[in-house]
Order: sequence, then C-alpha cells, then structure tokens
Amino acid sequence: MYVNKKNPHGGDIYSHDILLDLSSNMNPAGTPNAVKAAVRASADSCAEYPDPYCRELRKAISGREEVPDDCIICGNGAAEMIYAYAYSLPNENRALVISPTFSEYEDALKAAGITVDNYLLSETDGFRLTEGILKEDLSAYCAVFLCTPNNPTGITVDPGLLEEIAGTGVRLFCDMCFLDLTEDPGRYGIPSFIERYPNVTVLKAFTKSFSMAGLRLGYAMTSDSELLEEMSSKTQCWNVSSVAQQAGIAALDCDGWLRESVRMAGKERARLKDELSSLGIKVWSSEANYLLLRTDKDLYGEMIRRRILIRDCSNYTGLEKGYYRIAVKTAQENDIFLTALKEIIR
Amino acid sequence: MYVNKKNPHGGDIYSHDILLDLSSNMNPAGTPNAVKAAVRASADSCAEYPDPYCRELRKAISGREEVPDDCIICGNGAAEMIYAYAYSLPNENRALVISPTFSEYEDALKAAGITVDNYLLSETDGFRLTEGILKEDLSAYCAVFLCTPNNPTGITVDPGLLEEIAGTGVRLFCDMCFLDLTEDPGRYGIPSFIERYPNVTVLKAFTKSFSMAGLRLGYAMTSDSELLEEMSSKTQCWNVSSVAQQAGIAALDCDGWLRESVRMAGKERARLKDELSSLGIKVWSSEANYLLLRTDKDLYGEMIRRRILIRDCSNYTGLEKGYYRIAVKTAQENDIFLTALKEIIR
Repeated sequence: MYVNKKNPHGGDIYSHDILLDLSSNMNPAGTPNAVKAAVRASADSCAEYPDPYCRELRKAISGREEVPDDCIICGNGAAEMIYAYAYSLPNENRALVISPTFSEYEDALKAAGITVDNYLLSETDGFRLTEGILKEDLSAYCAVFLCTPNNPTGITVDPGLLEEIAGTGVRLFCDMCFLDLTEDPGRYGIPSFIERYPNVTVLKAFTKSFSMAGLRLGYAMTSDSELLEEMSSKTQCWNVSSVAQQAGIAALDCDGWLRESVRMAGKERARLKDELSSLGIKVWSSEANYLLLRTDKDLYGEMIRRRILIRDCSNYTGLEKGYYRIAVKTAQENDIFLTALKEIIR
Repeated sequence: MYVNKKNPHGGDIYSHDILLDLSSNMNPAGTPNAVKAAVRASADSCAEYPDPYCRELRKAISGREEVPDDCIICGNGAAEMIYAYAYSLPNENRALVISPTFSEYEDALKAAGITVDNYLLSETDGFRLTEGILKEDLSAYCAVFLCTPNNPTGITVDPGLLEEIAGTGVRLFCDMCFLDLTEDPGRYGIPSFIERYPNVTVLKAFTKSFSMAGLRLGYAMTSDSELLEEMSSKTQCWNVSSVAQQAGIAALDCDGWLRESVRMAGKERARLKDELSSLGIKVWSSEANYLLLRTDKDLYGEMIRRRILIRDCSNYTGLEKGYYRIAVKTAQENDIFLTALKEIIR
C-alpha cells in the first residue's frame, strides 16, 4: 500500500478506536457555532467553483491581521502553503530547519529537491532558540524555517532574536500557526515585521485556533509580491474550497470567543503542567495549547490501551523515544488523561 | 495584485454579476441531495483532521471503478493531482500536451520546471486526434497529456488509438474528468487498461459529475505504485478535506441519478447543437455536457451584457478569437441562452 508511507503526525484517529484524542492540537473549546453554520450553509452552493483568488476571505484576514490583502495568500490548510513555499525556492539548494519541529517543512523541502540541514535546539537550553543561531552562516541557505510557538515544545522565539535573524537578510519562514492560541498573539507586531523584512514569510492557520482541521484553511503573509506570485503559480487554480473560504470568513468574526478559549486553555495548561511535574514527569514551558513531556514509561502504548491517543514524538528529528506531546483540552478531558496517567505511573 | 495572474478559466462568477453561468461544465442536474446532506453533516466533525489516506473514500471509489484501492490516489480536486503528477516527473525535461485543451496541464508542467510542446489538433480533422500522433517521436517526452472527452471540444479519443499510444510505452496522462458525463463511460475499460499499461494514469473528478466543484475532490488511478508514492510525497499530509471525503462517499451512492442526468443532458445537447447550427453557427460534435462553437460575433461581450457568462476560448493554445464554449444546462436555462443568442445573431 503506497499511501501508508505518508509521514505520520498526530490526529490519526482513523487507525484506532479512540475515546480521547490528545495527539492533535486544536483549540480545546472546539469549533465555533458560526463556523459550523457556515459549513452547513455552503452545502447549497457547492456546485460552484470557489473563488480562485479568495477575495472576500483575504479581505477579512486583512482586517484581522492589519496586513494588506495583497500580502496574503490562502491555502488548503497551512500545510499546502509550506509546499508552495518550498516549491518556490531555487531547487538543488540547502535549507536550514530549526529542529525538533513540525516535519512537513522537511517533507516539503525534500519534495522540492532541496537538501535539509537541521539546527538542533538543545535540551540543556530547554529547547529554546538562542543567539547561537546568529553564529551560523545563514547566507549558505536558500531559506531558514522556524516555528513559534514551536511544535512540539510550545516554546516561543524571542521577538528581538527573531528580528535579528530577519535582519541577516536570509529568507525566513516563520510558522506562527499556534501564535493566536498564546496569551500574547501581538508580540511580533506582524504587520510592521513583514513590511520591514520582505525576506520574511509568516504562516498562520485556521485549523488550530478555530478547531477546523477537517476543512483545511491556512494562509501565508509576506510583502514579497514576487514570492506570492511564485507560490500562487505552484498550486492549482482552485486550491481553497468554497466551504473553507466561507468557514474562514465566519471564524474571523469569533475573536472574542478565541480570546476567551485561550484564557481557559492557559489555566488548564498550568494545571496539567503542575500535575505532571508533581508526578515526577519532566515537562517543558509551553506557551501554547500543548505540552512536551518526557518519561521512561511506554506512555503511548499504555494510553492507547486506555483508548487515549497521544503524540509519540520519537520520530521528530532531534528527539527520541520517551518524548510525548499532549494537547491541552477541557478540564473534564484533562481529568480523564490525568486519571489514566496516575494509573500508569503508580 | 499578484493573484490576478492566475490563469483564467470558466466559472469565475465572482468577477461579474451573473444570472446564468454557462462557463463551467457541471452536471446540469446540480448537486445530489445526498451530497449536500453529507456536507451539512460534516460540520459536526470539522475539528478533526481528515484521514490522510482517504481510506473509506478510496474503498468506495474502488467499488465503483472496479480498480484496486491501492491504485487510487485522491486529491483536492482533480487539478491538484495534475500538479502532483507534474511534480513527480523528472524535471528539466519535455512533455507533450495534445491541444487545444485544459490549461492546467501546461501550468502544472511549467510549475514543475518541465518544457511543454503542443501537439495541435487540426480544425480540418474536426479537432479529433488521429493516427498522426503515432508518427511523433513520443519517446522524446517524459509524458504525454491528453483529455478525453477533450475540453473544450467534448470530442473523445478512439479507444483503439488510445491503446496504441499507451502501447508505445510513453508515460501517458489521460484526463477523463468528463467521461462519466458521456453516454458510454465504460468505453475504455479502465480497470484492464491501467492494469495492462502501468505507464498510464487516468484522472477523474467528482467536480463535474456530481456538481461539487466548490468542495474540491478528484482522483487518479494507475497501477504504477512507485508513481503513486511519488505523487503522495509531492502533496501535504492532509490534502483532501473531511468534507470532501464524506461528500465523495455520498456521491458514489448516486449512480442512478448520474445516469439519468446524463440522459437529460444528452437530449439537451442535441437540441442546442441543432439550434446553433440552424442559426448558422459552427458547432463541434461533443459527447460531453458542453459545446465548442465558433462565430465572428463578440459573443462573450454580448452575453455578459445580458448577465450570461460563457467561456471565451481565445486563450486556449491552438484556438483564437471567435471560439466559445457553453455548458449544456437544463431545458429552461438553455432556453434563456437561446433567446439571448437569437437576439444577438439577428
């Protein structure tokens, strides 16, 4: 079966009979009702081709991000934009990926014929990116990929350091798909950041913030219009479904709901972290709606026996057996996880 | 605005205030109710990632096509599979496109760094592919692209000739997205054809047959498992939304509806063709749910003034000003078109 070779991520609830999925990192508050209503309403117009230019949606994103709509390109999930970006780079080249991180950067770069070097974050630095990155010869790379807050650690890159990396002039891909799920989504001042640095591309997703992974919707922002043209040419004409476009417009009206759910998730994250620590499990300082933890127990296997799916992180470049990622969910769901965890640990 | 450079196709109802869209070629019977119901039902599970392997959907397609499910790969519309195929070809190469035809082949090939040669169908042959193609040195090409029934002519390739082209051993991409809308969808014996010729890939779409262009769903079939792996690696992990997967499964239960709507469309196509001919307009012998016609009148401009959108085919390689494509719609809609046409012609 050829297809089983796709790189495994979290969220594969289709291979297991699952009670609770902690392996994918959606907003624990679920999908806003307005988004579900938009999906239902889209049923009546699904005969029509989607707008290839996502005009209404880009206008709505522009309003929210305070970035001009002609600096925005939409994709069939953020993941498609990673591929479109990689295909737009000069091939037979090298790119640098700050790891451990989301594996789609590496997969996309390889698909585009680009060699991947990894800049490994060190556990002794708490997997935090340091000034050490500036000592690398970044000009040797056609692009640098980083993720903030990072997946799977939830750790963010310091805004000053991010600015220094951008200032080197290297083409910089910043995946900020989880940023709106942190308590300070404005920390990077994105509108000014991408205006000042045309070498920077910022990636965002609706997937996580509005729990709509099944619909596929993400976007990239950059002031480099040539790159946007190139990325557009690397995808088909109608890459974003009309369902996703309509759901995205509806989601952008749910900002109050988003801030409220982030507050709830923050409280639960703190509680989970305390509980994990008190059980003697090493856990890192995530600012996002998930936690990286380390234990010698076979946590994945033990949890799956209890019909709970967590993310085994042993296939992340730079991690190994013993690292796991769990999503922060609602208080009730987290209780189910903690009860199971205590059973396993004791 | 970078995005306006996307190649224009039919179906752009977003740029005009349109009463009747004859520029895109959906099944005139519209979207089956079962498909709309599946879209509505999917709203409740849109938080979950889609199955990256489209397991249930591929099983359902396998049942309908009588092709093993591990010979099937699904995409975000058939158009995505054109790009995945082009990206899987050895680049810095040449491909042959039998033209005039759908421009996404050429766009995808260019995006993949492949040079495109056109094999021009001749108007004196009625735009029908002839044995002349076998005199070309096909081994000079990394792939040959053809479309049957062809877009925009609706003319099919003779099954014997298709077999002869496949028999040369050239990698052959056969777009059959409109085949299920003809009166003889079984003419190529696809299961045996792709089994005997691993160099052949067949493309199909849900878009046209089930009028669900807004949802984005298509698939490719080949017995070349290495190619399927390669195509899979050229796309992101979750390229087919869960909405599209669920809608596709629902659509495959609507075969009776499809056959009935094809019968209706066939009757209307014959009527439109007769009416066009009697108005002195040149029209070709389409077997699909659209017609290519030629007139010296500015038909596009005149129709748009009447809020009717048709496809101006002057940007097709091998066609020029004066060629237009119209979709076959319901009797009532076709009457609106014919009334407008008579006004314009007289």
